[in-house]
Amino acid sequence: MSTIDKNLTSFIDIAADSDFSIHNLPYGIFSEAADGKRRAGVAIGEQVLDLSVLETEGLLSLDGGSYFDQPTLNAFIDSGRNNWTKTRTTIQALLSNASETLRDNTELQKKALFKQADVTMHLPVQVPGFTDFYSSKEHATNVGTMFRDPNNALLPNWTEMPVGYNGRASTVIVSGTDVIRPSGQLKPNADDRPIFSPCKRLDFELETAFVVGKGNNIGQPIAVDEAADHIFGMVLLNDWSARDIQKWEYVPLGPFNAKTFASEVSPWIVTMDALAPFKTSCPTQEPKPLAYLNEKAADSSFDITLSVELLPENANEATVVCETNFKYMYWSMAQQLTHHTITGCKVEVGDMMGSGTISGPTPDSYGSMLEIAWNATKPVTLKGGEIRSFIEDGDTVIMKGYSEKDGIRVGFGEVRGKVLPALTFDFDK
Amino acid sequence: MSTIDKNLTSFIDIAADSDFSIHNLPYGIFSEAADGKRRAGVAIGEQVLDLSVLETEGLLSLDGGSYFDQPTLNAFIDSGRNNWTKTRTTIQALLSNASETLRDNTELQKKALFKQADVTMHLPVQVPGFTDFYSSKEHATNVGTMFRDPNNALLPNWTEMPVGYNGRASTVIVSGTDVIRPSGQLKPNADDRPIFSPCKRLDFELETAFVVGKGNNIGQPIAVDEAADHIFGMVLLNDWSARDIQKWEYVPLGPFNAKTFASEVSPWIVTMDALAPFKTSCPTQEPKPLAYLNEKAADSSFDITLSVELLPENANEATVVCETNFKYMYWSMAQQLTHHTITGCKVEVGDMMGSGTISGPTPDSYGSMLEIAWNATKPVTLKGGEIRSFIEDGDTVIMKGYSEKDGIRVGFGEVRGKVLPALTFDFDK
Repeated sequence: MSTIDKNLTSFIDIAADSDFSIHNLPYGIFSEAADGKRRAGVAIGEQVLDLSVLETEGLLSLDGGSYFDQPTLNAFIDSGRNNWTKTRTTIQALLSNASETLRDNTELQKKALFKQADVTMHLPVQVPGFTDFYSSKEHATNVGTMFRDPNNALLPNWTEMPVGYNGRASTVIVSGTDVIRPSGQLKPNADDRPIFSPCKRLDFELETAFVVGKGNNIGQPIAVDEAADHIFGMVLLNDWSARDIQKWEYVPLGPFNAKTFASEVSPWIVTMDALAPFKTSCPTQEPKPLAYLNEKAADSSFDITLSVELLPENANEATVVCETNFKYMYWSMAQQLTHHTITGCKVEVGDMMGSGTISGPTPDSYGSMLEIAWNATKPVTLKGGEIRSFIEDGDTVIMKGYSEKDGIRVGFGEVRGKVLPALTFDFDK
Repeated sequence: MSTIDKNLTSFIDIAADSDFSIHNLPYGIFSEAADGKRRAGVAIGEQVLDLSVLETEGLLSLDGGSYFDQPTLNAFIDSGRNNWTKTRTTIQALLSNASETLRDNTELQKKALFKQADVTMHLPVQVPGFTDFYSSKEHATNVGTMFRDPNNALLPNWTEMPVGYNGRASTVIVSGTDVIRPSGQLKPNADDRPIFSPCKRLDFELETAFVVGKGNNIGQPIAVDEAADHIFGMVLLNDWSARDIQKWEYVPLGPFNAKTFASEVSPWIVTMDALAPFKTSCPTQEPKPLAYLNEKAADSSFDITLSVELLPENANEATVVCETNFKYMYWSMAQQLTHHTITGCKVEVGDMMGSGTISGPTPDSYGSMLEIAWNATKPVTLKGGEIRSFIEDGDTVIMKGYSEKDGIRVGFGEVRGKVLPALTFDFDK
């Protein structure tokens, strides 16, 4: 699957810089305003191909029932890798210039193709579990430098394991969902008691997340060289974070309220099959990981260009505040998944596992405002003149990502979220 | 609901010390070996009353469909408090001596009553989210004394909020499920690299968990004086813990692998209606909690006697190693739920929220081996002579709990789990 057939073209009009080339074919769940019915689709150029229509027409002959006339992709994903590959191959053929089935059937096209601009995207999977890792060495070093000790920025366990924590699956939301500024406990003065207040240091975290495609049984860890087989695809993730709430709450049991109000993902799951041509190696891991984390594969990372833009409420134009790459991640997704299950934890189809903030080596590649504005000591001036250390009410955060090679582009689209003002509570008065 | 009708008796033979009196009526999911079909039942004495049979017979006239011919209780719980109350009242009447409907119908009794000893109990709910709090002041103080500073054992945020963290819903298991000793990263020597090894400090944590009966919308916190309305009932929870894995992994993002291999619960959900007569107050909260955590109710805790027994593989008799009470908990369940949602986190029907280890004021009331054997400095001698600082392979841990007042008993039954030896891995060789 990792070679690209450059001669493969579609009869559909696809811009050269479209994330959704015929080499991509990411899966999502969409609905039309008319009936609101959720079903599965694939993004192609500026359109969505309705897989429930293709399935009804008998064009996707999969064993075992209806997978696409469903409000989530879980049943399809759970049906296994053979079905993933078969479906991808079939759809790619149907969309290619070489096949007349869809190309020459305008009636079918009318039923099965929708403009993305006309449909609503939903969470692509029902998410049983959400986990967030912390696997960028640059990010962990930056945070450690700011808040602990610049000379010992990385904690000793960091280079031995992909450190992670359990997040909250119930607040994984899809791109386009507004985010209410959270209120909670802050401690502005060390000597005073905490106060109840809207978060004053609201931040994004630029991440990706992988979607588990195959689970394990409780008590049975997934071997690191088999872990890639358990991964269906990837999305972009904005792991919204309330830095001031986190600072006060997180010792000793980790982030909780600071992270559980919104974890926002892009709507299209880009499959590992589509990303395979963009494989690359992880940074050198030194010390060599313990045997259970030691991968045979030399290319278990991916070259994915990532960016973050800020768009204040009344700005004419968004400002790029971060450009980085997934390939900087120290720990691979396979290592993350193996570590997650090593004591016997069960993972399930649809689980999302966040990468952790993806920071690169230079300040323009840092994946959070905390790092970009260096704990508010280096505020950022946006186009139009607004200044930001953290995210303000009305700001929209837009994250984008794509892989590109030999003129072939496979992209994620975007995850976009706008911040609404905090609620007012009775007990505030 | 909080007064007890002492004249209420059942035609069913119920021992005076049974946890499952006619005043209790906890809900569970059971199956028979014959067909394995899961459906809802209520425990009464040593029997289970099959609610799916009562429903089919038209004896539980609830609006809106079938709630009990289901593999989990989620649909029933989600149907709302009116249905909870109505069902409880109807079942209590059907089981009472005063009603002839079931009492005089041996045919119906044959269809609807099973010996608990003859059925298999399952997880009573599908658990969308599992959260664990840390709300025993005695436990937090003990841990802080052992591992940090006896003079500042409690961290400053502890008295300001019910500290908690997200657990792993996928590994919530029902009583009777064996637990494989987890393997993972340990760091026996501070100066050396970590090793991969079976956990050597496997522990239980005596907890209860409440089951969320009514969710909220994302972004909309649950007010503390409304929180009790969102709670359906309680179970016992053994929050299995790998202390050595935890010690190495948990800074800075909290416990992960140390806690995600098994969280074992009792099969019967005791409803808040059944527990209402046993309400009592929380310990004095000083300083007075911030307004959002400040409850009007003076009796938001419960008087529930709890115990832990250890039964080694070849022992003739279990040894009680802990006797404590839920009423020692500093933070109430209402405060926990409100704090959980204060930044906008969504909770869902079936979510389980662990109390945190329930330790009382004296060493015989500590809720974990870590505390009982005081970090292995005071090993415990069991009946039969075996010595324990932590849990060994083959050991069974049994937790029990009940409320009692005026001769009326409402109990939880037990959560029981046996430890199996660690797996052997290829890379160990």
